[in-house]
Amino acid sequence: MSFTALFNPRGVAVVGSVTPGKLGHVLLSHLVAGGFEKIYAVNPKAKGFAHVPGFASVGDIGDPVDLVVVASPAATVKAVLEECGRKGVKAAVIISSGFSEAGNVAGEEEIKATAQKYGIRYIGPNCAGMINTYSNLIATLQARPPRGGTAVISQSGAVGGAVMHWAEELGLGVSKFVSYGNGSDLNQIEFLRYLKDDPETKVIALYIENINNGREFMQALKEVTQEKPVVVIKSGRTSTGQRAALSHTGSMAGSDAVYDAAFKECGVLRVETIDDMFDLCKGFANLPAVGGRRLAIVTNSGGPGVMAADKAEEMGLDVAEPSADLKAALQSFLPSFAGVKNPVDMTVEATGEDYRRVLEEVVKEYDAAVAIFLGPPYLDTMPFAEGILAAARATGKTIASAIQSGCGVTESARYLREQGLPNFPSGERAVRVLARMAEYAEYKARGCRQVEVPAEKGLLFASGPLLEPEAMAILKENGIPVPEFHFATSQAEAVQAARNIGYPVVMKVVSPQIIHKSDYGGVELNIDSDAACEKAYERIARAAAERDFRGVVIYPMLTGGREVILGLTRDAQFGPVVAFGLGGIYTEVLKDIVLKVAPVDRAGAAEMIRSIRTYPILEGIRGQEPADLDALAETIANFSRLPFLYPDLGEADLNPVFVFPRGVLVGDVRLLKKP
Amino acid sequence: MSFTALFNPRGVAVVGSVTPGKLGHVLLSHLVAGGFEKIYAVNPKAKGFAHVPGFASVGDIGDPVDLVVVASPAATVKAVLEECGRKGVKAAVIISSGFSEAGNVAGEEEIKATAQKYGIRYIGPNCAGMINTYSNLIATLQARPPRGGTAVISQSGAVGGAVMHWAEELGLGVSKFVSYGNGSDLNQIEFLRYLKDDPETKVIALYIENINNGREFMQALKEVTQEKPVVVIKSGRTSTGQRAALSHTGSMAGSDAVYDAAFKECGVLRVETIDDMFDLCKGFANLPAVGGRRLAIVTNSGGPGVMAADKAEEMGLDVAEPSADLKAALQSFLPSFAGVKNPVDMTVEATGEDYRRVLEEVVKEYDAAVAIFLGPPYLDTMPFAEGILAAARATGKTIASAIQSGCGVTESARYLREQGLPNFPSGERAVRVLARMAEYAEYKARGCRQVEVPAEKGLLFASGPLLEPEAMAILKENGIPVPEFHFATSQAEAVQAARNIGYPVVMKVVSPQIIHKSDYGGVELNIDSDAACEKAYERIARAAAERDFRGVVIYPMLTGGREVILGLTRDAQFGPVVAFGLGGIYTEVLKDIVLKVAPVDRAGAAEMIRSIRTYPILEGIRGQEPADLDALAETIANFSRLPFLYPDLGEADLNPVFVFPRGVLVGDVRLLKKP
Repeated sequence: MSFTALFNPRGVAVVGSVTPGKLGHVLLSHLVAGGFEKIYAVNPKAKGFAHVPGFASVGDIGDPVDLVVVASPAATVKAVLEECGRKGVKAAVIISSGFSEAGNVAGEEEIKATAQKYGIRYIGPNCAGMINTYSNLIATLQARPPRGGTAVISQSGAVGGAVMHWAEELGLGVSKFVSYGNGSDLNQIEFLRYLKDDPETKVIALYIENINNGREFMQALKEVTQEKPVVVIKSGRTSTGQRAALSHTGSMAGSDAVYDAAFKECGVLRVETIDDMFDLCKGFANLPAVGGRRLAIVTNSGGPGVMAADKAEEMGLDVAEPSADLKAALQSFLPSFAGVKNPVDMTVEATGEDYRRVLEEVVKEYDAAVAIFLGPPYLDTMPFAEGILAAARATGKTIASAIQSGCGVTESARYLREQGLPNFPSGERAVRVLARMAEYAEYKARGCRQVEVPAEKGLLFASGPLLEPEAMAILKENGIPVPEFHFATSQAEAVQAARNIGYPVVMKVVSPQIIHKSDYGGVELNIDSDAACEKAYERIARAAAERDFRGVVIYPMLTGGREVILGLTRDAQFGPVVAFGLGGIYTEVLKDIVLKVAPVDRAGAAEMIRSIRTYPILEGIRGQEPADLDALAETIANFSRLPFLYPDLGEADLNPVFVFPRGVLVGDVRLLKKP
Repeated sequence: MSFTALFNPRGVAVVGSVTPGKLGHVLLSHLVAGGFEKIYAVNPKAKGFAHVPGFASVGDIGDPVDLVVVASPAATVKAVLEECGRKGVKAAVIISSGFSEAGNVAGEEEIKATAQKYGIRYIGPNCAGMINTYSNLIATLQARPPRGGTAVISQSGAVGGAVMHWAEELGLGVSKFVSYGNGSDLNQIEFLRYLKDDPETKVIALYIENINNGREFMQALKEVTQEKPVVVIKSGRTSTGQRAALSHTGSMAGSDAVYDAAFKECGVLRVETIDDMFDLCKGFANLPAVGGRRLAIVTNSGGPGVMAADKAEEMGLDVAEPSADLKAALQSFLPSFAGVKNPVDMTVEATGEDYRRVLEEVVKEYDAAVAIFLGPPYLDTMPFAEGILAAARATGKTIASAIQSGCGVTESARYLREQGLPNFPSGERAVRVLARMAEYAEYKARGCRQVEVPAEKGLLFASGPLLEPEAMAILKENGIPVPEFHFATSQAEAVQAARNIGYPVVMKVVSPQIIHKSDYGGVELNIDSDAACEKAYERIARAAAERDFRGVVIYPMLTGGREVILGLTRDAQFGPVVAFGLGGIYTEVLKDIVLKVAPVDRAGAAEMIRSIRTYPILEGIRGQEPADLDALAETIANFSRLPFLYPDLGEADLNPVFVFPRGVLVGDVRLLKKP
């Protein structure tokens, strides 16, 4: 769709009461105060507002109207849209509530159908409206933020409104704001795609509480983050209400981990608080991209410098010592008592000019710099703001200002902001921003990976649950290495199979009624002779006699590999998700599991392997040979394709999978039908 | 000492230039503006300031002077103190810099000696002064905060100054402020002890960069935290510069972990940022103590409620569902669309009266409540502030306000503050405060444990390094269980020893020159016969022939235990520190180590055991029998006494220690002399 009608309409009609205190009145006040010119008030009595003319119906307006803002009662919205359709209105912002959020699903369907009939695209219902600061269009209940590079998309009207309030108060420059409420037509996906190419928008801030189409959302995010950064707050991280049903393996990571995995894959920067979101937006909208992780910290106070350095180390930035050349350059003009390390501590004697010169020097060697200033209240901060700004301008490098206290600190921060250089309230917060900017730059440089979804092969469970030998055969067929195995239905067959494989062997019960085989005496390890094999068969057959015993499957006894586990599940929002972690008792205790939205390719699988905490155990420590990580990555990639090949596969666990110095073998498998 | 002269002096003299821009001028301006009455200016020309009379010398002042604030050049300070001593001044605030911080250690010693001669106690030098808001005494370069319950002690003048600036700006009420700078006389320890009994002080905020006497500091902290909370920022968490030398075991945890352990043991609440510090001080100074971890969240907006619930779960608070009775009570007056769960979501329709009634109900069942309000800009926040305040007053329970946006939010927050109820900028920040308040209440309820330090037994290394059998004997003597072992110096002795112990056995080289025994072929496992024993002896003897071979030590082959490791080291600030962690390759990878300042008692050791991430493995998972945690705790406690028994013991590692379902045995030992 074209968003021109929405963001740059020729005329805007507000449908709703103009009585003070009513939503229509609030909306008209904002529109007028914002300076938008072609406004029309629509209400039964055709009342106007200030210089805005009043009409009884949208159809009565003679001039062109592209956008209508609807704040009349829910029951009237359908009729309003009919009117709008006949008038040729192309876009609507439906503030009115009382639809699906209040149980009125039919009402929402009705307005959707009406809008579709006339080709009207709309935001809402039950939303807080939208803003385009660059067309002076404030079609919202909320405050009026200054112009700037941050676009804000909020599902929640309340949170969106609060964000606009803070943006106005703190001077965060906004390009566009949209609160999409119930999102029954336009939602975050359309706006992400639109804002991707919006020249006024440098960074997109997104607040969501829940989503529907995870795959399409990810696709939109991937497209956008190749162009500009997206900062997200997704509430409900640990809330019990939102927990999706995951396989055993996956559930150890927690369902919110799927969101985390999706965001990470899409290069989206997730934050937890509005403060973090604002900080990041300030950085992205105003600072040059961060070219790497080497950070210089320049300060006039030791402790805060160290606190910033701590935060930098924690966030993976490199606070390396300056080179001898740089030290010499700094010592040539700094007083002898200045600490020429990293942080560069110029002490309380530092001047604004010192900040300028030091910053100009350090960014020759470092990728970015943070300038921290803590002044006593009688020391004017403005010269320091000027020094930091001059260095940022002269070098064009990423220099973050953190003037924290001193005389006129509020004015200095505002001055910097007006000059396009954000000031952060502390060194740590500035550092956090630079670290996340570096993270985004790395993602962008790496490029976004599109993994092809394989075509369907067919159904797995057409004739009921899969027995273990059948499941193993499916794995083998799809490039997932399984050990040699034989199905045996008698003692004699079992002995023959064991001889073929070679002792020692493992024997496991095969029964559609037995899932947890060990609990039923259904697993016999280390069988080392024909006699032991016969006895093992007898014991298993006896234990499973009442439970649809079909026979046993015999494997070689595997030893010497490191155990990992793989899982697959279908997430309600994102579809198939693959999980990987180290096996054994530590997995349960440490929950050292990583998730990724499936399918993954070998590179994606390799990333998963590297990202678990116990990765060094796979790499080999204490002189141990490394596990075969290439084979493991290929196994994970092939495994992650299964839910696409077999649409009736609901969940899968491979536990354990043995990773040897050469090769991989699945130790046990469980494939379950989708409910 | 009596702090009366310092905090409630009868008269204050300021020594320093009264020329505008000079420190003396700044100090006098603050003292006058603060409303302190008996002030005297002292400078060579006897110049006065406003109504303050000027004198050429402190001795010239006729009225009593208890406190002198010195801002004259470093070279003059000794003479000023001489004058003060003769005049009978009892306390000094030495703002002047140019002492040990600039390399002038002798100058600092000199003023210290002079002060001691006259019994003058002082803060500084190189400090930013002090404040007692309750005596209108603003003897500092910094801003003037309002009166309140937070005392601030800052090592750094710059940070202390910034904190006072923010306190003034944000309205954090301060009782006393001290910046002790070089701390050559009074430092944080004296002020902690003083503030413990200061009736105006409800909470102490402490900013430190480094300390000297860790044990005394801990003692002071323990005393204070029994009375009132202490919130600490210690900079230098990860900084490479500050890393102390720890034993191998200890160093895996990082040196800052010693500070963490010390703070935790003393019930001190460590925070990372000034924001956190302010939040906690606001909470402790103004809210009733938190009696437990059950938290109710009351909100008018779903998403922010969930974000607060997420934070609560993360911080270990219990956001349980309301009981059926409470639900019914709430439903009796809330509209039907309100979400009566936890969070209680009253939706945007909520009134101030709704907040009051819901809060009054929920605190009957929960230990504390957070009231979150997000309003559109046209909705007046004051009725909500009043509703929340009314509930807090009516119930006397811990109710934290988080009014985040809406009309007049700044005024409403100020109103609440003036009424003694803090408002937090977000629900998450309010939750964090309540969680830490609960943590402190738990500590206080538990009471602080004083572990007796054992008396010295004597030296361990009088005759050189300890050989393994000697070290094992020392452990045994001190209640640390070791396996049966025999020292053997020939094949025949080795065989006899092995027979006594019973096969299979382990044989290890004994040589003062070999520390890493395995690297020299010095360890033979699983020896199961006389012949194998003879061969093993021969191999070891040959491998160690060139390295002062003294013989072998023979142990039973231990199996079936879970491996843990214990370490001891001497920290530069805190002295002996004991470390505990799970053994095996996972320890290296996971750095799952806990530290505690030694000695620890059994209860303290049990806490250490429970606090590692892999604790469930010791408890026993998958049906495994629990390890003998009582025996382990006793072993840790006995081990932690060694550095006190043996003053020349520098570090110790027991790696591994086998913990069996019944009993504990040390597998290997290394005791090293203090350098």
